[in-house]
Amino acid sequence: MPLEQDLIHWLREQTGAAPDLELGIGDDAAVLQAADRGTVVTTDLLSDRVDFILGEADPAAIGRKALAVNLSDLAAMAAKPVACFVSLLLPDAADQPLPPLELAQALYAGLLPLADRYGATLAGGDTNTWGGGLVISVTALGQVTKHGPLTRSGAQPGDALLVTGSFGGSILGSHFAFEPRVEAALLLRENYQLHAGMDVSDGLTLDLDRLCKASRCGVELDIDSVPVADAAVRLAEQTGRSPLDHALGDGEDFELLLAVPAAEADRLLADQPLDGIPLTRIGTFTETLGVWSTAADGQPAAIAPAGYQHGEQE
Amino acid sequence: MPLEQDLIHWLREQTGAAPDLELGIGDDAAVLQAADRGTVVTTDLLSDRVDFILGEADPAAIGRKALAVNLSDLAAMAAKPVACFVSLLLPDAADQPLPPLELAQALYAGLLPLADRYGATLAGGDTNTWGGGLVISVTALGQVTKHGPLTRSGAQPGDALLVTGSFGGSILGSHFAFEPRVEAALLLRENYQLHAGMDVSDGLTLDLDRLCKASRCGVELDIDSVPVADAAVRLAEQTGRSPLDHALGDGEDFELLLAVPAAEADRLLADQPLDGIPLTRIGTFTETLGVWSTAADGQPAAIAPAGYQHGEQE
Repeated sequence: MPLEQDLIHWLREQTGAAPDLELGIGDDAAVLQAADRGTVVTTDLLSDRVDFILGEADPAAIGRKALAVNLSDLAAMAAKPVACFVSLLLPDAADQPLPPLELAQALYAGLLPLADRYGATLAGGDTNTWGGGLVISVTALGQVTKHGPLTRSGAQPGDALLVTGSFGGSILGSHFAFEPRVEAALLLRENYQLHAGMDVSDGLTLDLDRLCKASRCGVELDIDSVPVADAAVRLAEQTGRSPLDHALGDGEDFELLLAVPAAEADRLLADQPLDGIPLTRIGTFTETLGVWSTAADGQPAAIAPAGYQHGEQE
Repeated sequence: MPLEQDLIHWLREQTGAAPDLELGIGDDAAVLQAADRGTVVTTDLLSDRVDFILGEADPAAIGRKALAVNLSDLAAMAAKPVACFVSLLLPDAADQPLPPLELAQALYAGLLPLADRYGATLAGGDTNTWGGGLVISVTALGQVTKHGPLTRSGAQPGDALLVTGSFGGSILGSHFAFEPRVEAALLLRENYQLHAGMDVSDGLTLDLDRLCKASRCGVELDIDSVPVADAAVRLAEQTGRSPLDHALGDGEDFELLLAVPAAEADRLLADQPLDGIPLTRIGTFTETLGVWSTAADGQPAAIAPAGYQHGEQE
């Protein structure tokens, strides 16, 4: 039996009922139930030797990451995951460690439990083979809650900049193992006033610069309060760069950046409502554009946005 | 400036207002307006040397095809296109004919006019480069009309099997140039009673077999009435196979298969309501399972489903 049909049979055995689907895998397209509010859609494509190395990384970790980066985007919009669609391009060369069907099953063995945990029902996809490297393209759909989507463009001068978790050194493992901040984002959106939000995929300062540009404001960063991950400290021992440097620019932390009105931020920091995930204030949004900090001499000093630029041309 | 940002700037210049979008390109995700009815979602991934040959095919034709195959799936569900999401994985090796940004722009030069024509607003995506071959993954979203989605599973014994257009020889060009049957499907769904529908992507008999299996019935095919494309005749001259053989199994015709109650089919065939697209009756759905025809001796003869099986393992 051909691979795609084999895989669909196997997937049907793995997956349960899909409450938000009128029609799932097996027709020309999936049908999602009518949504009272808007539908949030995000898509990310991962490829061998760019986002992972097949043969070094566990395929389950690769499959999990392919969905997790999309769930992180839904979290950044404070949307509730509903469905995901997975397109695979599987290497079929004879020298591959796993034949295509086994590789697909190994990828799904990491992806499906995460989909299940966050309610992102696997609703369709496309399975192909070729002579090239592994490619996984995932599209995730979510529902806007009654509080509306959380965008990048709502930060206002005077807002506090809050972050979840800690930053840096993701290459040592957390770029696979991170937990998308879906529940945190929904809880915060439900209980607190948030002006803007974004997830850190490419680098803390690079993504912060993007949030500021979208909101037409700037941010004064309190460098000393940036939470530095243990992994950043360990990585710094290998690279000779500082742990803070890694925290500011490594990327793939998949933590949330939040613009919160000052008084609300005080309440939020006092509450620390996220179980096991610290919330930290690391700056203040300003009318002065750019990402900057106050130097020892009291003068503002610009911080160059650092991080991973997709398809950067040297 | 890095490629993805460059491309987003360029795309914003190319694309106009997006009536069904609350939020388009530029945030963590897109937001589509609330839908009164269900949302139809489909995704297809195309890759070099499987679905096209980069260097032989015009990149605009490749980009157009990547969207058109998805629009064909929306047509198969009788859904109205709303938005599309495009993920690119662009080769960046020095020996490539086009640098990544120029290649991306050439792909979009074919994709965007088709998106515009059918109302599938480009709402997001992901742009990456790598050392491998070109990959394009497109997800398209559509709205269910008041008549509901047209599925594969509603065909009933006694229904007529109708098809749009003609079949075979798509490799000679129509697999790039075909017009997705979006308008035809919406017009037919609005004005006639249809029991089931599907588009022919992998092969007439193979896809017909799938439709029959989904509907738990069979179909008696009137072989002599299958509309054979001129391209199938031309291709047969090269291959030595018969034009009919090409029509039955070539695939990538992207025509519609429709199960229509018998009396309604008569009305439909008399009306021929599709401007420039013939509708032809080529069979009758039956309780007898499988795809079959009546041989010269009056006995039923099974027709082996022929077509392209994704990831077929020899």
